[in-house]
Amino acid sequence: MSTMSSAVGSTTMIARLSTLDASFDDRLDTLLDWEGVSDAAVKARVDEILADVKKRGDAAVIEATNRFDRLSVERMDELRLKPEQLKHAFENLPAAQRDALASAAERIRLYHERQKPTSWQYEEADGTVLGQQVTALDRAGIYVPGGKAAYPSSVLMNAIPAHVAGVREIVMVVPTPDGVVNELVLAAAHLAGVDDVFTIGGAQAIAAMAYGTDTVPRVDKIVGPGNIYVATAKRAVFGQVGIDMIAGPSEILVVSDGQTDPDWLAMDLFSQAEHDEDAQAILVSWDREHLDAVSASIERLLPTLDRESIVRESLSRRGALVLCQGKTEAVDIINRIAPEHLELSVDAPDTWLADVRHAGAIFMGRYTAEALGDYCAGPNHVLPTSGTARFSSPLGVYDFQKRSSIIHCSREGASALGEIASVLARGESLTAHARSAEYRIKP
Amino acid sequence: MSTMSSAVGSTTMIARLSTLDASFDDRLDTLLDWEGVSDAAVKARVDEILADVKKRGDAAVIEATNRFDRLSVERMDELRLKPEQLKHAFENLPAAQRDALASAAERIRLYHERQKPTSWQYEEADGTVLGQQVTALDRAGIYVPGGKAAYPSSVLMNAIPAHVAGVREIVMVVPTPDGVVNELVLAAAHLAGVDDVFTIGGAQAIAAMAYGTDTVPRVDKIVGPGNIYVATAKRAVFGQVGIDMIAGPSEILVVSDGQTDPDWLAMDLFSQAEHDEDAQAILVSWDREHLDAVSASIERLLPTLDRESIVRESLSRRGALVLCQGKTEAVDIINRIAPEHLELSVDAPDTWLADVRHAGAIFMGRYTAEALGDYCAGPNHVLPTSGTARFSSPLGVYDFQKRSSIIHCSREGASALGEIASVLARGESLTAHARSAEYRIKP
Repeated sequence: MSTMSSAVGSTTMIARLSTLDASFDDRLDTLLDWEGVSDAAVKARVDEILADVKKRGDAAVIEATNRFDRLSVERMDELRLKPEQLKHAFENLPAAQRDALASAAERIRLYHERQKPTSWQYEEADGTVLGQQVTALDRAGIYVPGGKAAYPSSVLMNAIPAHVAGVREIVMVVPTPDGVVNELVLAAAHLAGVDDVFTIGGAQAIAAMAYGTDTVPRVDKIVGPGNIYVATAKRAVFGQVGIDMIAGPSEILVVSDGQTDPDWLAMDLFSQAEHDEDAQAILVSWDREHLDAVSASIERLLPTLDRESIVRESLSRRGALVLCQGKTEAVDIINRIAPEHLELSVDAPDTWLADVRHAGAIFMGRYTAEALGDYCAGPNHVLPTSGTARFSSPLGVYDFQKRSSIIHCSREGASALGEIASVLARGESLTAHARSAEYRIKP
Repeated sequence: MSTMSSAVGSTTMIARLSTLDASFDDRLDTLLDWEGVSDAAVKARVDEILADVKKRGDAAVIEATNRFDRLSVERMDELRLKPEQLKHAFENLPAAQRDALASAAERIRLYHERQKPTSWQYEEADGTVLGQQVTALDRAGIYVPGGKAAYPSSVLMNAIPAHVAGVREIVMVVPTPDGVVNELVLAAAHLAGVDDVFTIGGAQAIAAMAYGTDTVPRVDKIVGPGNIYVATAKRAVFGQVGIDMIAGPSEILVVSDGQTDPDWLAMDLFSQAEHDEDAQAILVSWDREHLDAVSASIERLLPTLDRESIVRESLSRRGALVLCQGKTEAVDIINRIAPEHLELSVDAPDTWLADVRHAGAIFMGRYTAEALGDYCAGPNHVLPTSGTARFSSPLGVYDFQKRSSIIHCSREGASALGEIASVLARGESLTAHARSAEYRIKP
């Protein structure tokens, strides 16, 4: 048994692992290890901004925005975009972009419509009715990063589920450092049914939405990605408002049976790695020659990439080509990693589904590149990262709704339940509970 | 307009508010204000315990348990209960308790069975399949407080939804300070299908379940109530594992149309207030004389309560009888408070449902005392507190499952989607995404 497989058959900078290596478990653990810790300095600065916005409202938001985004506004209405501006941005897009954005929005809407749960009730023999009522949030807040990481697709993926859920008011914040506005982002906001847009960002935007100011309405839940300040602020206001997951770096696990074009797989790995240096792209196969071929494709195609240096850094730090002994081991690796994105580049991927216990999104077959799902297949691209697919789910309509339990006891039902509740309440020494139940027992 | 209504018509220590008071909004805000802040000292001690358990595992758990629960165990198997012990506890209960517990468990199971979502897929015209696959958590951890706040009903309410969801392994922790074991809690664990019980608690139990030790398996999600150390530890490990909500004090909002027996309503308020001094019980009615009558019932019944001093403290600090001007104002107050428990003690409560936007559980009609829902009606008694019903839901089967998106593009579908994705990816300057999509476009 050799621990030298990383040097076998390739000069690529991407790690080569084999499940036969004695060190495989440790090496995989090391590769997967990622902890997004806010240091104490970041935490302190964020706490200060949160407290300031809570206390001084709009004035604090304006000051922080001028400072961090290098602006010189005096009033909040300078940090607000009107619906007409969003509409104008959409109408002025080049036709190809406008059509692509509209097609994507429509497909995302159709998929999320299928998620809408319905309220239900059922009646028991004695007339007691039980059920649950589903309602939408009153107000959702969507954080959209500014500058180079401003993604119109993320606007669609966050706002459309909220809209489909029936949220009454969708507020969006997007910083505009140096006053630079991303027209594609505004166009997406128009398409997705966003009601209000404020050009603010950072912890000050999170605080404004969590606490409310004279101008920015308090929201019930904040979703959307952001930098470390935004993530730290979201964690701090959790409880005051709802939040979605705190996202880690994006990752993909591709399983190939050896029959997919190596160039396609190399590009699929690149498409993940190009996000940033912390992104993770892993390929698993039981075909060693195929892994060699993909490795060669990586070497050949890397220099042709616009983001070559980011991809190279990401692949060398966190990427891997893993040789396993067959389908069973591949499935074990899938469930151990619980990947954000899983590409099953195999024949008959349907036969794998029942064994995949943990994955954010599953891209099935050789034609289903992750990039198709990132933009326009329909399902959400906001997915659980860093193994959190073990216990959490893609963003969806569910995240913008909540349930209320319904209990309506008939006189007979209350009497029968009162007998049971009385015994259990007295067992817990909660005698006011018991007496409240006993009042409902028929004499 | 008077701000003196608190002195009108009653000598009770419970606050009297009227929506006509100029200060009503402020007074209600003050009453509702609650922030469960862990101070820095608690946070530091918890962080220390978490780090110690992460590093030293079982040894750290044993040390902390001996120290905090005043035990002197040497090995982890002394802190572990076998399935036979749980079964034995159940079989040795007095018949009335055993039957009541079994009836409650069965009703809770039946209700939660209705929550089970199903996986779904649909096929588009070009053969592309989209869907979502629902899977259960591998392992859930349930925290059960020890000592005086050990509630067997909470074991049922936390473990049964996990069991119904299909969780493979349910781990329970319950501290046994001074070695005192609560037989009702063990019996409930048996009924609810708990697999493993460890008699540990506090931050050390949360750490053991979040990180795993040689003896305590790492879980995917931790649910259940606990003291400030437990809550602080749960917040700290959030992300590493899933957690349910961090619960605040329990609360009830009762709306009465004046036709319910004032003694019943007084006892319903008491049943909430007896939990602890921070619990909140508020009654709203548009019938001033009815409020006077409930106030008189409170005065008369208070001295008959086992937990009189807790109830008195809770009602005087956080309780209120609120006079409003009719149903519309009552509904406004409901949605503003977003109560954990809402009792609609009115005629035709069905006609109120559509207007109730935010509430954890809705108890409808004069017979449906909250206590019936606390123990045995069927719906969960773990509910969003402190206004978080604005954005969160009762504990349910959903909390023990997650979804994976499914995307399976046909060759034609991938080609059409590839065209759209290519345009959008290039708009975001993610050209490896674009090229990955473009490989799938038919020549």
